[in-house]
Amino acid sequence: MIYDLTVPQFIKGLHNLSALLDKGAQYAETKKFDVEVLLNSRLAPDQFPLTRQIQITCDTAKLCASRLAMKDAPVHPDTEKTLPELKARIASVISYLETFTAKDYSEAATRHITNPRWDGQYLTGEEFVVHHAIPNFYFHMTTAYSILRHNGVEVGKKDYLGKMPYKR
Amino acid sequence: MIYDLTVPQFIKGLHNLSALLDKGAQYAETKKFDVEVLLNSRLAPDQFPLTRQIQITCDTAKLCASRLAMKDAPVHPDTEKTLPELKARIASVISYLETFTAKDYSEAATRHITNPRWDGQYLTGEEFVVHHAIPNFYFHMTTAYSILRHNGVEVGKKDYLGKMPYKR
Repeated sequence: MIYDLTVPQFIKGLHNLSALLDKGAQYAETKKFDVEVLLNSRLAPDQFPLTRQIQITCDTAKLCASRLAMKDAPVHPDTEKTLPELKARIASVISYLETFTAKDYSEAATRHITNPRWDGQYLTGEEFVVHHAIPNFYFHMTTAYSILRHNGVEVGKKDYLGKMPYKR
Repeated sequence: MIYDLTVPQFIKGLHNLSALLDKGAQYAETKKFDVEVLLNSRLAPDQFPLTRQIQITCDTAKLCASRLAMKDAPVHPDTEKTLPELKARIASVISYLETFTAKDYSEAATRHITNPRWDGQYLTGEEFVVHHAIPNFYFHMTTAYSILRHNGVEVGKKDYLGKMPYKR
């Protein structure tokens, strides 16, 4: 279940995030301003701007996947300045996530996950997913959404949630 | 696992949300403005204000728990106007969530979850949790956080994430 909770949801969320950025680009074009204004926007002066929110959303997904599976992750040096670069970053992480299967996570729930900032402590893989990776992923994705929303981009909950697997 | 993913995390998130509101109240007191200004704030003119974000966060948790376990949920008529009333609403949902145990969710993953707005379609319990309840819960909680943050309340990621179950 660790796989189902993370990889496919992160892939879906990143596709939604990329589509949210497209709406931002359309809005900038309609209103005739440079889309980089949005990329540098934030909700508070001491908060990360949109660009950084996107980079952190990407890293949260990438590092969760790689740590749980004990596989190396591609390096992204956070140099993106433009919307196409940010969309490429998102696409790169989606491609990386797509290399995983449920089998890579067969031992993930009980694995000990560490972090240099945790002072020698650890979380189990399941705790890491439930207490850390999932809340963080949605936190930064929602903050990206809110920065766009606050600046007038016409985004709604459906853009955030994406398609639901409804059945009859 | 459906229980671990939802009930304890929602309880934790709601405690964190209540503490975020306390920080808002402290800020209002320091700056000498009425805390209801914060409760009526929003990030965009056509977005729900803080009060409604809190109510929806509460409902997302409550209805996820009740639907998955097929138990009746307490009714909350969305009449809260003040910070103590909103904190009582949060406390009421926490108390309700605390009545559940993992046993209540033993058949939840495969249960068919329906909604009047879904036009006769359904999601399995697992899909409902992963695609709907969790992303919605964090969406409204993060939006509440962002409204406070945008208005100058000194809240940070740790207030949102809360305590981590680190081990040595």
